[in-house]
Amino acid sequence: MERLDRLINSFARLPGIGRKSASRISYWLLETDRTFVDALAADLGEIRAHVVRCRECGNYAETELCDVCRSPVRDSDVMCVVEQSRDVATIEATGEFRGLYHVLHGVLSPLDGVGPEELGLGRMLSRIQEKGVKEVIVATNPTLEGDSTALYIVRMLSSKGVKVSRIASGLPVGGDMEYADKLSVARALRARQNLDES
Amino acid sequence: MERLDRLINSFARLPGIGRKSASRISYWLLETDRTFVDALAADLGEIRAHVVRCRECGNYAETELCDVCRSPVRDSDVMCVVEQSRDVATIEATGEFRGLYHVLHGVLSPLDGVGPEELGLGRMLSRIQEKGVKEVIVATNPTLEGDSTALYIVRMLSSKGVKVSRIASGLPVGGDMEYADKLSVARALRARQNLDES
Repeated sequence: MERLDRLINSFARLPGIGRKSASRISYWLLETDRTFVDALAADLGEIRAHVVRCRECGNYAETELCDVCRSPVRDSDVMCVVEQSRDVATIEATGEFRGLYHVLHGVLSPLDGVGPEELGLGRMLSRIQEKGVKEVIVATNPTLEGDSTALYIVRMLSSKGVKVSRIASGLPVGGDMEYADKLSVARALRARQNLDES
Repeated sequence: MERLDRLINSFARLPGIGRKSASRISYWLLETDRTFVDALAADLGEIRAHVVRCRECGNYAETELCDVCRSPVRDSDVMCVVEQSRDVATIEATGEFRGLYHVLHGVLSPLDGVGPEELGLGRMLSRIQEKGVKEVIVATNPTLEGDSTALYIVRMLSSKGVKVSRIASGLPVGGDMEYADKLSVARALRARQNLDES
């Protein structure tokens, strides 16, 4: 069946979905409530036309400016730099951060042809200066590329009078030392924090 | 973002996809090639209109009769009864079976109001008799419901001069006795096969 095979192939291209899951989902869609399938098709067809990158910070939004950039109560003294739009959702869910965001939509990766220009770091610097940001928290992932990107941003801002910090990495909360990888344990040791109250 | 949230909620309803995967997929769809997203939306929108149940066997098809029922080379002496359309694809992939299929689209489940009539077992019996089927292989899943359905079919056909067999269940090939569940081991013992060549 050409159409069903095409649907299975398409689902198998989605991240985290193998051929077996793709097949299971496709057959399930044939059995389930048809209005749900039509609604999913309609939402998919519209998402790219209606969800755009925020003109200011690059986060996804349904308006020219995202909710954070439009908000009058966010603290423009501090800006959090993330790799992806979904990282904004992750951080917002914690309720720990009330500043601005900047979404890079990637990391520095010279082998893939992604340099500071492709990542829009110049535009980010202008934005930091225009907004009068005092602290930049670099929340790129604790990976080789994420760390290199963080280091580049630290250097870029070093002479600009902006404080730069990096999110901590170490053992995940609720994690077990026994199952942690060596690098995370090493980082947790290096980034140890003093518990003395003096 | 209303639209993005709606898409995430829809993906989270698909089988085997949790909220985290749904979110990951939705953000990925915002970043990926737009023509792919449009094609997926179009395929989804069309699948229910173009893929229908085969008039004969109930398998999904893009024509009134499925490929198996239309084929002049399939052996109508033997018929394999399965729960779902995807089971046909699974069995066809083995290349071990050249007979006809009958797809029940479910199992007997009195508590859910699924009796012999809802499952179309009468229609299946007529088809078996019309086609002059000599052996029915019941390939419903080795679960409580699948086994009950198989037993019902055995009884239904007992006086009809049709041989009925059940697919073997036991240890999966490549499996390890240590990790097998008790029921599978018990079945594997009960269904043991003689290796004597005499």
